[in-house]
Amino acid sequence: MKKIILDCDPGMDDSMAIVMAAKSPDLQLMAVTTVNGNYPVDVTCVNARKTLELLERTDIPVARGLAKPIIRDCPKDPFTHGTDGQAENHLPAPAMPLSELDAVDLMIKIIKENPNEVYIISTAPMSNIALAMIKAPEIKEMIPAIYAISGSFGLNKYAFLNATGDTPQSEWNVYVDPEAADLVYNSGVKLVALGLDVATHFDVDFSDDDLKKMEESDKKEAKFLLNAIHFIRNRGFDAYCTVIDCMAVAYAIDPTLVETMEAHVGVETKDGLTLGMTVIDRRHHFVWEHLPLIQVGCKADCGRFLKLLLELVLK
Amino acid sequence: MKKIILDCDPGMDDSMAIVMAAKSPDLQLMAVTTVNGNYPVDVTCVNARKTLELLERTDIPVARGLAKPIIRDCPKDPFTHGTDGQAENHLPAPAMPLSELDAVDLMIKIIKENPNEVYIISTAPMSNIALAMIKAPEIKEMIPAIYAISGSFGLNKYAFLNATGDTPQSEWNVYVDPEAADLVYNSGVKLVALGLDVATHFDVDFSDDDLKKMEESDKKEAKFLLNAIHFIRNRGFDAYCTVIDCMAVAYAIDPTLVETMEAHVGVETKDGLTLGMTVIDRRHHFVWEHLPLIQVGCKADCGRFLKLLLELVLK
Amino acid sequence: MKKIILDCDPGMDDSMAIVMAAKSPDLQLMAVTTVNGNYPVDVTCVNARKTLELLERTDIPVARGLAKPIIRDCPKDPFTHGTDGQAENHLPAPAMPLSELDAVDLMIKIIKENPNEVYIISTAPMSNIALAMIKAPEIKEMIPAIYAISGSFGLNKYAFLNATGDTPQSEWNVYVDPEAADLVYNSGVKLVALGLDVATHFDVDFSDDDLKKMEESDKKEAKFLLNAIHFIRNRGFDAYCTVIDCMAVAYAIDPTLVETMEAHVGVETKDGLTLGMTVIDRRHHFVWEHLPLIQVGCKADCGRFLKLLLELVLK
Amino acid sequence: MKKIILDCDPGMDDSMAIVMAAKSPDLQLMAVTTVNGNYPVDVTCVNARKTLELLERTDIPVARGLAKPIIRDCPKDPFTHGTDGQAENHLPAPAMPLSELDAVDLMIKIIKENPNEVYIISTAPMSNIALAMIKAPEIKEMIPAIYAISGSFGLNKYAFLNATGDTPQSEWNVYVDPEAADLVYNSGVKLVALGLDVATHFDVDFSDDDLKKMEESDKKEAKFLLNAIHFIRNRGFDAYCTVIDCMAVAYAIDPTLVETMEAHVGVETKDGLTLGMTVIDRRHHFVWEHLPLIQVGCKADCGRFLKLLLELVLK
Ligand SMILES: [Ca+2]
Ligand SMILES: [Ca+2]
Ligand SMILES: [Ca+2]
Ligand SMILES: [Ca+2]
Repeated sequence: MKKIILDCDPGMDDSMAIVMAAKSPDLQLMAVTTVNGNYPVDVTCVNARKTLELLERTDIPVARGLAKPIIRDCPKDPFTHGTDGQAENHLPAPAMPLSELDAVDLMIKIIKENPNEVYIISTAPMSNIALAMIKAPEIKEMIPAIYAISGSFGLNKYAFLNATGDTPQSEWNVYVDPEAADLVYNSGVKLVALGLDVATHFDVDFSDDDLKKMEESDKKEAKFLLNAIHFIRNRGFDAYCTVIDCMAVAYAIDPTLVETMEAHVGVETKDGLTLGMTVIDRRHHFVWEHLPLIQVGCKADCGRFLKLLLELVLK
Repeated sequence: MKKIILDCDPGMDDSMAIVMAAKSPDLQLMAVTTVNGNYPVDVTCVNARKTLELLERTDIPVARGLAKPIIRDCPKDPFTHGTDGQAENHLPAPAMPLSELDAVDLMIKIIKENPNEVYIISTAPMSNIALAMIKAPEIKEMIPAIYAISGSFGLNKYAFLNATGDTPQSEWNVYVDPEAADLVYNSGVKLVALGLDVATHFDVDFSDDDLKKMEESDKKEAKFLLNAIHFIRNRGFDAYCTVIDCMAVAYAIDPTLVETMEAHVGVETKDGLTLGMTVIDRRHHFVWEHLPLIQVGCKADCGRFLKLLLELVLK
Repeated sequence: MKKIILDCDPGMDDSMAIVMAAKSPDLQLMAVTTVNGNYPVDVTCVNARKTLELLERTDIPVARGLAKPIIRDCPKDPFTHGTDGQAENHLPAPAMPLSELDAVDLMIKIIKENPNEVYIISTAPMSNIALAMIKAPEIKEMIPAIYAISGSFGLNKYAFLNATGDTPQSEWNVYVDPEAADLVYNSGVKLVALGLDVATHFDVDFSDDDLKKMEESDKKEAKFLLNAIHFIRNRGFDAYCTVIDCMAVAYAIDPTLVETMEAHVGVETKDGLTLGMTVIDRRHHFVWEHLPLIQVGCKADCGRFLKLLLELVLK
Repeated sequence: MKKIILDCDPGMDDSMAIVMAAKSPDLQLMAVTTVNGNYPVDVTCVNARKTLELLERTDIPVARGLAKPIIRDCPKDPFTHGTDGQAENHLPAPAMPLSELDAVDLMIKIIKENPNEVYIISTAPMSNIALAMIKAPEIKEMIPAIYAISGSFGLNKYAFLNATGDTPQSEWNVYVDPEAADLVYNSGVKLVALGLDVATHFDVDFSDDDLKKMEESDKKEAKFLLNAIHFIRNRGFDAYCTVIDCMAVAYAIDPTLVETMEAHVGVETKDGLTLGMTVIDRRHHFVWEHLPLIQVGCKADCGRFLKLLLELVLK
């Protein structure tokens, strides 16, 4: 059973990632930490608690993190997750309290108490994670790996068509806080980056049969996902949008779901055309060896991913 | 018969581009203009004349262009075309004089004398072309199109594996003078950019039968190409390197050889990780409409390209 | 008698610089070249001719130069020189033709025909001068010196209070085309840069007695200047604004008018807070020796400058 | 009696700043927090404790702060404070423990426990202060003012001659962590920045009479300063170097010692020529109102400053 911290910005797909992480028998969810990203942190730390209450898992602490990127202002996300940030599911206001420690301190505390045991799943801008590493650099030696929904690596057309940052080829999580991503990519901690290439593949789609199973389920989380799928389709987007962040949790559960390649990747932190790009160096000759080596998701088994996801939602 | 100016930096593949342009019955080669690029301009304006003398086409003027990028210093090309820049073919020193006009003035003069008739084929950094546009902006209205070996657009793996600039995803011609490329891309002149995606495809390769035909030919240019192929293979590179620039000439002759797509593309001119990148915006949503719209080569018929090339070399 | 080319963007003070340069017995004004700057080049090449016609010096050629900075768009000057760019003097439309050669070609031609003899006086963005150096680098060896109204060096409060670019510490001429300035500063040609420190010193002011002399004069150029002074004072600016550019001409006539110091100076070409700054390195320790060494005007004899100026205006 | 936290990187002048802060009857030194800067944080948190032990003030907590700038690597300071960072005074190794809280947490705790009462004196890169503001933005409302040795504002020649960063016009503390400075300058907290203009004025010098008084004193801190003065003079630097940081403490004690002006100032965070510059906007027209308004030290009463300093050292 892997110990994990889920650092997220729910967001409907982050909410589903919480569902998977909390319900998986293979994971021990030590904490949910929230951050500014798809929505302001005031919203994301409400939504995280709403989701855990829906699952009746108020034993899992939720800690509030950074309200903005480390050195930048918050950009505005042009995509919508609805007025509540949860696809208009409008779950009840949470009763459970926030952790007394903020996200950074809670993260540091849990990691230090469980050295080499706590994996971080990152489904949001990396502001909290980077700040924890700045404040307590010693934790870098104690994290076995970070599994992140992060970046876009040019490996297929989805890397380009679905770019979510506000520059032509960037992904939203990196784009929002590129300095944080740059710090984490360069931290020396093993990083598995699942980018738009795999996490927004159009093969991540739900069949009518899937929808029917959700309809027939008495699980609130099944209803939640179903609502989200209807919400997103009504807005002219594809169903994969509701579960992007789930792939990082799925990878934590079963790493055979996504094939990865090791590559040198740099994060562009200069303003303008390429801000927030994750620039992969795949050259046969003259590769920049000084760029950090990370594990890049290059091919997901979308069918098995969806199967695992549904299994956990419905159980 | 299309009137063309070939702006180049020979370079073995530029030399072969001159061969094709001078011998094609479909093109009228008005001038060869040379520029710093693969080699210093002192070398490239010698090699252009050597090549025309080999073809006995000293009627075509050769003009010397810029010795360096518009505002930058010359980077050093890590790739080699041999001590002579022509794959050790060591052709005789040229006897024909250079044009009295420099490349920029000759380009401007020919374009103004033949408004809307002169296509530019660009197989080198765009310093000369940009400078002509800076000095005489009125020519921008008089150029029907520019066909360029330029950029790398992420359309397939070759765009990444064969990146030739000294940053992880840039192509050499753009990397050397990104400000020049940026000016030309934004000039409003129709631009067909054949990038690494098509021009360095591994399907551009010569068969034993092709080599045999060159061996048996009494054409000096066939011998030249054969030597170049041996030269490059001996250095551990693939044969496509000898004819990269030829694809722009081939496209001028027969535009059905390369499929193109229209796309917004920005050129990165900021130093660092992404300098010289040609950043394509293929997003389904929120595309940057203010980036210039250009024609990007996305798929080449490599077989027909090689056939045309060989036909011209051997005839 | 010093041969000079005056490269300018009239502008009222450039117009007065033309007056001084054309009337000084110590200077031989070989050409006036115009460029975009305070006003579009279409205006500045009209105003240069208007001024020469007012002086009845239509023997001096006027050549049209660049309509925009080398690689940037034109910024908008927030300061006004009136609807005609000449302080509402509204001189008659010029009858004299423009030079057949453009500014860059005329500059190159004159310099090559008179090697080591032609000084350039620069009272505008350096786009023309830089382009001439890009196109014909050999002229760099043939120019004995450039006297420029250029930059701001932090030597006194005027360097800060009167900053004219659209960044906090830049001067307009450099700000408009920083890449051009950077090229010229780094060209190796001796450069005397008279910045805001000296050229906008509040001691450059006209006495009532001066004004009276202009009133009593029958010289059209005296009337021109008088109008300009009234124009500028009515707009709440100081009278020095009418003659800023004259100091470079005065320096060409009599270099003892301005004390200079040799210093390493870099031109900032990065966008943002410091774009267009001329950054002087006066450190006692660890100075950046690789920055170009230029002559920086540090103290002007404002009284003698005004005396010389008036003498030439009134004679 | 003002409550203060002294955030520093001792360094000999920081050590003297600790002496003043600990001995002044007008200040209550709540904590000394240390950071990377002149020396690695491992050294600075030793030197801070050495200094407090020399003063027999081990009641004052010392907390360890950041080992590097927030997002950058540590630059190397070309200036030396000796092998021990204290001008070869080689004080005994400290016995007092470090605070259990790190610098950021201790700073946040003290400020929250004493809202609106704790002034920060900053004599080092602002990494700790910025990180505290990132982690706990609510403290920004609770700090009455920050008095900092920070920046260089072009107000006199010392601003240029004594520039200490590794760019032509930057000051070391800002240069080392420009993003931290930028955050603090923009935090909305009242900032009094004493720059090179005042803190490195050559009038800050010790008379023979001053030196004699130190010699005759039995105070260890007098001996410490005397050694530092000899050390620095032997290396060809001026005596002001030993007490630069003291001016911020002096200002906290008696704000009439330094005249200030309110001005808009931007911090340059772009790499290259102007990295780390504090760019003041003193324009009469078109000032950038969006730059933060800070209090800039423009004139110090060096005589009274030295008198106060000596009084505290000798008492
Ligand atoms: Ca998310
Ligand atoms: Ca080429
Ligand atoms: Ca002017
Ligand atoms: Ca210090």
